[in-house]
Amino acid sequence: MKTLGILGGMGPVATTAFMARVQALTPAKRDEDHIRMLVDLNPHVPNRHTAPEAAGRMLGEMAVRLREAGAEVLAMPCNTAHAHADAIRAAGPPFIDMIAATVEAAARTGATRIGVLATPGGETLYAEALATTGLQIVRLEGADREAFMTAVFAVKAGDDGAGPRGEMRRLAAVLVEAGADAVIAGCTEVPLLLRAEELSAPLVDSAEVLAAACVAACRGSGSEG
Amino acid sequence: MKTLGILGGMGPVATTAFMARVQALTPAKRDEDHIRMLVDLNPHVPNRHTAPEAAGRMLGEMAVRLREAGAEVLAMPCNTAHAHADAIRAAGPPFIDMIAATVEAAARTGATRIGVLATPGGETLYAEALATTGLQIVRLEGADREAFMTAVFAVKAGDDGAGPRGEMRRLAAVLVEAGADAVIAGCTEVPLLLRAEELSAPLVDSAEVLAAACVAACRGSGSEG
Repeated sequence: MKTLGILGGMGPVATTAFMARVQALTPAKRDEDHIRMLVDLNPHVPNRHTAPEAAGRMLGEMAVRLREAGAEVLAMPCNTAHAHADAIRAAGPPFIDMIAATVEAAARTGATRIGVLATPGGETLYAEALATTGLQIVRLEGADREAFMTAVFAVKAGDDGAGPRGEMRRLAAVLVEAGADAVIAGCTEVPLLLRAEELSAPLVDSAEVLAAACVAACRGSGSEG
Repeated sequence: MKTLGILGGMGPVATTAFMARVQALTPAKRDEDHIRMLVDLNPHVPNRHTAPEAAGRMLGEMAVRLREAGAEVLAMPCNTAHAHADAIRAAGPPFIDMIAATVEAAARTGATRIGVLATPGGETLYAEALATTGLQIVRLEGADREAFMTAVFAVKAGDDGAGPRGEMRRLAAVLVEAGADAVIAGCTEVPLLLRAEELSAPLVDSAEVLAAACVAACRGSGSEG
């Protein structure tokens, strides 16, 4: 069994929810069956949109330190921060790419027009990965883009109540109405507000996909999400 | 703000729940307000009851590595493993003692006869700490001691359903009937099965007490649990 290194804290609550999901997907009958996780839950990584160079430098340092502490596989439950995937890969251990794994999972649904719920930076990464795979992206437009970020920041401020939940459900429906035949939850705050049952199209949850990939990589088993 | 180092994995799910509790107790309006946590969630620490020397050695090594990674305060959300508190303290950073903090919180309720829900090893630590504080311990007896461990191992096997929940509620009531005027949840699996509202006496939850103490130590604020 391999030790999983997690670059976390973006956001903090999403990271803890991600760890719980890794544990829920691990076939375990006793403590010892679970994966060892070395976690740097760092809510003080410089802003990925406004200070990208400083963010990349810190993420690279975090990855090196996780490797030195014994991490054999690296993962980062934050889509937006995958803009700095190269800085993390430079640390050495295999890095499970959340964007790539999620796009693969979306392709497996058979859908061809993929709605994306993500930050501006995350959306750019998904647009590139979807294009490479020959899939079409469906984006939020205009005021809905701001409404999305407002709901994400509500979660970060501790509010995962009816207000932001209703907004996220509405935004997912907007993407389906705009022609999406599957929707990617491409921000780790999204699944804290939205359940797959609330959509008429398949929801491909990047946090679930990454958690399943981590279990498979570290235990050589587990569902493929 | 100080970086919190967490010696975790005993058990794994209890550690993740503990981290979520630290976050819930942190007054935060945005990511940056949260505490940085360096976590070694290690479900492979040798058995604390049957291999105490090997367990102590590994916990000491984990503490040193957390310090080297930048942890400024250490905590361990496992009562039983506090038998090895000295090995952790030897690493250097201040170690928040979960047993001592929980007994202090129990004393603050005004209760004098304190029921303890804990593993055999954890119960021994609580018996010593309560005696030092002049409080009387109320223990489970006979078959109820085994019933407690069965419920704890059910959680570790992924079952936090009605069966183990009912048992834990019954065992807490047994302690109250035996004269306890407060009950310590002295095992981090207990709060995964039992809520304070289910008891007629105050429940002093060691995980909640430790989480509040971590927030206070790292942010210089937060509730005192």
